[in-house]
Formats: sequence, C-alpha cells, structure tokens
Amino acid sequence: MIIESKQNERVKQWKKLHKRKNRDADGYLLVEGWHLVEEVFHSNWSIKELIVKEATTLPKEYDDIKQFYVTDAVFRELSQTETNQGIIAVAEKPNYQVDAQTTQKVLCLDGIQDPGNLGTIMRSALAFQIDLIVLGTGTVDPFNDKVIRATQGAIFQVPFVQGDLTDWLTELKKNDIPIWATALDERAQPLPHVSARDQYAIIVGNEGSGVSKTVIDQADETLYIPIAEQSESLNVGVAASIVLYHFQQ
Amino acid sequence: MIIESKQNERVKQWKKLHKRKNRDADGYLLVEGWHLVEEVFHSNWSIKELIVKEATTLPKEYDDIKQFYVTDAVFRELSQTETNQGIIAVAEKPNYQVDAQTTQKVLCLDGIQDPGNLGTIMRSALAFQIDLIVLGTGTVDPFNDKVIRATQGAIFQVPFVQGDLTDWLTELKKNDIPIWATALDERAQPLPHVSARDQYAIIVGNEGSGVSKTVIDQADETLYIPIAEQSESLNVGVAASIVLYHFQQ
Repeated sequence: MIIESKQNERVKQWKKLHKRKNRDADGYLLVEGWHLVEEVFHSNWSIKELIVKEATTLPKEYDDIKQFYVTDAVFRELSQTETNQGIIAVAEKPNYQVDAQTTQKVLCLDGIQDPGNLGTIMRSALAFQIDLIVLGTGTVDPFNDKVIRATQGAIFQVPFVQGDLTDWLTELKKNDIPIWATALDERAQPLPHVSARDQYAIIVGNEGSGVSKTVIDQADETLYIPIAEQSESLNVGVAASIVLYHFQQ
Repeated sequence: MIIESKQNERVKQWKKLHKRKNRDADGYLLVEGWHLVEEVFHSNWSIKELIVKEATTLPKEYDDIKQFYVTDAVFRELSQTETNQGIIAVAEKPNYQVDAQTTQKVLCLDGIQDPGNLGTIMRSALAFQIDLIVLGTGTVDPFNDKVIRATQGAIFQVPFVQGDLTDWLTELKKNDIPIWATALDERAQPLPHVSARDQYAIIVGNEGSGVSKTVIDQADETLYIPIAEQSESLNVGVAASIVLYHFQQ
C-alpha cells in the first residue's frame, strides 16, 4: 500500500517534525538520504520507521524496520532537499547518559546559530575524539536537517547534550576538568603557546558576539588564535576545529 | 529619480550579474549589504555604482560614487538575501598582477564546489597571511554572492587568481616554492610532523574526491591531518584552515 494523500494523518505527523518544537515534543527527527540513513542505521540510535518513495528498492538490511511507501508528491512534501533520494528515516532522539569518569574532553558551544557551523563542529569533534559536546542554550537545534547534513553523519557518533552551560561548567569543575574559553580578554594566551593535554573543556561562542561574559568568567583560562591584523576573525567552525586539532597533538 | 520598473534596461543588466557567465563577460559583480559594501569600499577594488532602495540614507563617504535609487519591489528583484538591507554595490572584478618574488605562501584549490567552503577558506587565507590563492578549474566562482557573504569581506583583501592548476604549479616550481598536497598516498606525512616554514604552496581538493591524481603527482610532498578511525573526514574548509594554521606557526 502506498500513501497517496498529503492529508494522511501519518504524513501530517511526519511533516510536523520539520519544526523544532514538534521534534522536542515528540522525541523524533527526520534523517534524509541514503548516506545519512545508512549512518544512523549503523549507529546506536534507533530508527522508528522508514519513509520510502514509491518504486525505490531498499537494501535487505532494512527488512526489520517498519517501512511506509509514499507517492512522489507526498515524498516531496516531506523532503527537505532540492533533489531528494527517496528515503527518510524517522529516528528517535538519543539520550546520552554522561559518565563523569570517562568524560575527559568536552566541547561547549555558547550560542552557535548557523546550522552549517554546528554541523562542521560536530564533524570535527568526532574527528578529534571529543567525549561530549554540550550545546548551550541559544545554540541551534542539532536535530535540524541542515545540521545533520553538515555533520555528514558524525552526529550519530559523537555524544552530546543540550542544556545550560553554567550548570554544565559547574559540574565539569567538580571533576577537575580545566576549562578554556576562546576569548580576547587580558589573560588570553595565544593557542600555539598552550600545551596539548588529556583533559579539557573548550568553549566557543556565537558567530557575532563570541562567548558570553558570564561564561568566560567561569573559565579557568582563555585562549585565542593569532591572526593577521587586517583579518576580522575566523569562521567559528574553523576556530573550534583548530583548537581541537591543537589540543589533540 | 527612482527606478520603478523591473523592465528598466539598467535593472535587467544588474540582474544578469546573478549569473556567472554574465559576470565573466561583463567584469562586474554585485556586493550586497552594509558590511560588505563598506569592506569593498575600503579595499583596493573599484565600485562602479551603488544600487539603493528608496528611503535609504547613505553615509557621506559614498557621495563620490554614482548612486541609483530603486523601489522596494525592484530592489527585491536584485537582492540575493532573504531580508535585504537596501544597498548593493556594483563592483569591478579585480585583476591581480602576481609578483613571483613576493609570492611565498600560496593556497591552491582543486575543485572546491561549495560556496560556503570557498568563502571560509578565503577568510582563513587572509587570517593566516596567504599571499595568493589559486582557484583551479572546477572551483566555484568566487564572485558568487554566497561565496562573498561567507568570506565576510576577506575576499576584498586576499589576492587570488582563477586558472589551470597544472600551469600554476609549474610556475611555482620554477620559483622553488615547495608544493604540498593534502592526500592519503603512501608518502603522506601526518601534519604535526611537518615543520612550519616560510615558503609553501598547499593544495586542497574537492569535497568528495579530494585533490585529483594529476595534481598530486605534481606535488613535492603530501600530508594528512590525523583523525579518529570512526571519522570519515573533516570539512574541507576546516582541513585547509588547520593546515594554514599549522604552517603559520
């Protein structure tokens, strides 16, 4: 049976997942395209069901997942890409239990707003073996389709939590994790002078305003990446990645 | 006088500049928004004229530039942003004369396709004091509005040329510039083991396929950024920036 109507109740429920408030309420999100669906399938995340465009052949490995076939028109209603590949997974939001003992390398995000930047940062966090990403209040929703695409699937492998940064930093301090904020205050050290380490929390901030004052005040130390005088700043995804690269050496 | 018709010849000419082939033929491009217009105004690039939405007040410093006021509807026709700021500069494409003697740090791009990635890379190239960017065939047009926005204005300050990479690499070799390609071939060295230097050309490649084989063959050496096993790769803008950061130290 193929779902043919955009008014179908199931279709309406799926479409609602385009919006953050409904993802928050329902606990599900959409993962679109062959590569990302395969990545989420092979991760620890759970897939509730697959939405498949008519005449699309699925690999055998997806046989145990509930499948709903829909017409091309219905699929286009649900797709969030310009040229769709005919497959969307309805995935369950993960719920990571944070173990303070094994959480040694933490990346904290203070109000990152661009989905592409957040995706790039999550991708780099996986590459540079971050144990946990803390997405502070004001950071774009990681379950946004643009974020997921920009992570190229890394989002399914790197643990993250959403919450209040102040609370998280207080917790990290209790576990003696040194906290570094990227900031240009008086005490700031140039990154090349900071030696690599095994334990750290690094805070990067909003594209326009950087890390907020109250958060900087909680940091043990601050650092900056030296750049040419005529350059205003680096892209925040780049800056975060350079710091992670440096700390990893 | 305010231009009120989308059929106005001048409006039609401006709108044509949304397309690469017309920018290539005319030698002009559009720069939109207050911040970018100010950046191009204070750079060595030339502004031919300003397109201004009716009821917008311009700063005195723009008095010497030809100004055309247009209605809100006409402006929206020309704007390439969702919420426009009412100002667009028609700028002349720069024509950089490359001086081999002072060109010591070169970044070569082999088929970068995403405008956001190219913009990020140009921004980092300015920050890490690259003397010249060579945009190889197959790389997205740098005069594309999305690229310009992603550079945040850095495009107006860092010299670049478009051309055949093979020809450029041959030229660089004549000047004894060591050429490094990012690649995972047998001879590749991990970036942290490569020592910083004053002279170099670095090649980064396409988002999906990396640097092409023929270009790698022209490189003196190759390098890679060590990443976690479960990570597929870094974003190319991030990878390029990390290499530039490392070489700058």
